[in-house]
Amino acid sequence: MRRAIDLAARGLGSTSPNPIVGCVVLDSAGRTVGEGWHQRAGGPHAEVHALAEAGDDARGGTAVVTLEPCDHTGRTGPCSQALIDAGVVRVVYAVADPNPGASGGAGTLAAAGVEVEGGLLAPEAAAGNAAWLTSVLHHRPYVTWKYAATLDGRTAAADGSSRWITSQESRADVHRLRAESDAVLVGSGTARTDDPHLAVRGVPGAIQPLRVVLDTEAATVKPGARVLDSAAPTLIAVAEDADTGALDGVADTVRVPRAATGSAGLDLTALLAALHERDVRSVLLEGGSTLAGAFVAAGLVDRVIGYLAPVLLGAGPPVLGEAGISTIAQALRLTVNDTERLGPDLRVTAVGTPAHEATVTHTATEES
Amino acid sequence: MRRAIDLAARGLGSTSPNPIVGCVVLDSAGRTVGEGWHQRAGGPHAEVHALAEAGDDARGGTAVVTLEPCDHTGRTGPCSQALIDAGVVRVVYAVADPNPGASGGAGTLAAAGVEVEGGLLAPEAAAGNAAWLTSVLHHRPYVTWKYAATLDGRTAAADGSSRWITSQESRADVHRLRAESDAVLVGSGTARTDDPHLAVRGVPGAIQPLRVVLDTEAATVKPGARVLDSAAPTLIAVAEDADTGALDGVADTVRVPRAATGSAGLDLTALLAALHERDVRSVLLEGGSTLAGAFVAAGLVDRVIGYLAPVLLGAGPPVLGEAGISTIAQALRLTVNDTERLGPDLRVTAVGTPAHEATVTHTATEES
Ligand SMILES: NC(=O)c1ccc[n+]([C@@H]2O[C@H](COP(=O)([O-])OP(=O)(O)OC[C@H]3O[C@@H](n4cnc5c(N)ncnc54)[C@H](OP(=O)(O)O)[C@@H]3O)[C@@H](O)[C@H]2O)c1
Ligand SMILES: NC(=O)c1ccc[n+]([C@@H]2O[C@H](COP(=O)([O-])OP(=O)(O)OC[C@H]3O[C@@H](n4cnc5c(N)ncnc54)[C@H](OP(=O)(O)O)[C@@H]3O)[C@@H](O)[C@H]2O)c1
Repeated sequence: MRRAIDLAARGLGSTSPNPIVGCVVLDSAGRTVGEGWHQRAGGPHAEVHALAEAGDDARGGTAVVTLEPCDHTGRTGPCSQALIDAGVVRVVYAVADPNPGASGGAGTLAAAGVEVEGGLLAPEAAAGNAAWLTSVLHHRPYVTWKYAATLDGRTAAADGSSRWITSQESRADVHRLRAESDAVLVGSGTARTDDPHLAVRGVPGAIQPLRVVLDTEAATVKPGARVLDSAAPTLIAVAEDADTGALDGVADTVRVPRAATGSAGLDLTALLAALHERDVRSVLLEGGSTLAGAFVAAGLVDRVIGYLAPVLLGAGPPVLGEAGISTIAQALRLTVNDTERLGPDLRVTAVGTPAHEATVTHTATEES
Repeated sequence: MRRAIDLAARGLGSTSPNPIVGCVVLDSAGRTVGEGWHQRAGGPHAEVHALAEAGDDARGGTAVVTLEPCDHTGRTGPCSQALIDAGVVRVVYAVADPNPGASGGAGTLAAAGVEVEGGLLAPEAAAGNAAWLTSVLHHRPYVTWKYAATLDGRTAAADGSSRWITSQESRADVHRLRAESDAVLVGSGTARTDDPHLAVRGVPGAIQPLRVVLDTEAATVKPGARVLDSAAPTLIAVAEDADTGALDGVADTVRVPRAATGSAGLDLTALLAALHERDVRSVLLEGGSTLAGAFVAAGLVDRVIGYLAPVLLGAGPPVLGEAGISTIAQALRLTVNDTERLGPDLRVTAVGTPAHEATVTHTATEES
């Protein structure tokens, strides 16, 4: 299963809106005879690749898959049937398919006399599919807030200067993150101050994410903004009643309700729903601190990736703005799941309680 | 030498104002026949311990020492002579002794026909003696600023609540840090808000550090303050003209000049000099943010140890206060030299350019 999980990860960034899936086929003697992973949306599923490589050796063998094999005829036939046809006698999978349209593969296999076992290394396999599982269960994309700051939590010095707090290595890593995301988001404040480009550079074969700017009044993004070039698609999110005249023929816009009275800007839940409808399964929130605070306040941050530079400033804008938290008991508590040195900097990854955690537990109990 | 460095580290926290030193004695065939480390100030030097264990086997052998053997007759005889008397024919050391009163051991050994080599693993060995080297070279203690904060750099929520941002594991680690320090410092703000105890708890055999409160007007620390109990010695640093009547018979005080006009509080350079005179070689600065900012502004922070909790607040007091840095080019840039997970938290250790770096380079060139 570890090998299957590694294979699955090769699809990160190119399978959306589908999950990543890896599959290893063993022959009746337990030797690996086929490997495959889901490479891109619309392409063959992992099982199909692995069975093709295994050929006749699959007969009497075992298929190890990171996700419950699908049971529906989509752009490819059902994998449950393909496994049965190949003569596989045992299927071990990690995560049950929570998608109402696709689940049932385990049942079909079992009905055909195939021995089926689910839940093996489910948490590890689910982590790789966090974006897809979140979107299936919550009908919204998985949100990663990325920030770059000093050890004392500042994003710039008192005079606003910030080039460069983090290193070249950290900045390159952000491009990798963008390449793994379906959309990259910034608020109008960042658009105004930084005129950011937001496209992926330096990642060979990367699929460009959708660049999204939250510009409530359609007053910030102007023709000539770097985010409007042809390097990647762009969407400007504006209020339902905003005057978008200046953007006509220049950028795609999406109209979103305003946030509830008392809060500024757009309704973030509605925005994420609109992105979900456009097949966006993962969002990289790149700031600034006002927008990040609003996402935290709305409970819409699933993962935080901080690039910490070993630098002290003692003054300057804080990395996270008002998030509706006034006392320690309300703090957003996360779990660190990775730390990595990037050149002189430190990257810290922390996650909230995964959306699929209930599902994973459920699957493991149900199947074992 | 790695082994000698490991042995030396066992003395951390109990040798001050002396350096930590480790020594391995090899016989003429290269077998380890003696090991020793400097265990406490006033006790035998590392070489004496190792030679005693080696006995006659030292004859014709090699001594590997983390610091150049001393040449002076202090509370113990000169180690250079002890090595010659034991018949050692070769001495390999890491760091040259920069102390004018103690250096010369290498010369004495060489004059007696002993082969001497210096500089081996000098940076590693010097790191363990950073406090001692800083104090020898700069006549002030080595300063470590320790802080506990959220990922977004806050030490408390907006309403001031902060129990507990970091975990039990992190808080226990702070006691270990205190035990390794000769003094623990806080500002009057922290003394007033937290009534901290500052003594070491839960570290078997720990030597209690001197607890120091910077209380310019002698107006904050009152009889009954926890810092005045008998768990550890305490020193209240006050201005030369402060009225210390309320502290008479209650606490030791040290009078220090006020900071230069324009700055608040005490002159930190003068304070550190006063502590140096009291044999304090290492200081753990425990806050708060105002005092830490003043230390950074004065260029007096040698090392930073941050306990980062995977928590987001979006509001609340920032971990580091005004440090006289207004633009990014003036930022204090450090080097991360350790990261460690402590329960749910992350400990990040970063250091400035070591005071002894010039010395180390010099030594290596001079001796090899
Ligand atoms: N270090 C880093 O990682 C990093 C990353 C990005 C940016 N930055 C820095 O952050 C600064 C900009 O940050 P900022 O805080 O001023 O601006 P921001 O967070 O980028 O944008 C905030 C604006 O977004 C709009 N918005 C729309 N819907 C919103 C909602 N639901 N909640 C909150 N805002 C919403 C609002 O303006 P309208 O409603 O008027 O449109 C709001 O003023 C820049 O200086 C930039 O350099 C740093
Ligand atoms: N999370 C953490 O790691 C941590 C650690 C410690 C404290 N804290 C929190 O920090 C808060 C207190 O911090 P704070 O910033 O208010 O106070 P502080 O930094 O503890 O103390 C500042 C005071 O120290 C005195 N002082 C003397 N000489 C000074 C100098 N050269 N430079 C600056 N100050 C000097 C000044 O008062 P006088 O001149 O009047 O004496 C000054 O107001 C508390 O809420 C505490 O809980 C957090």
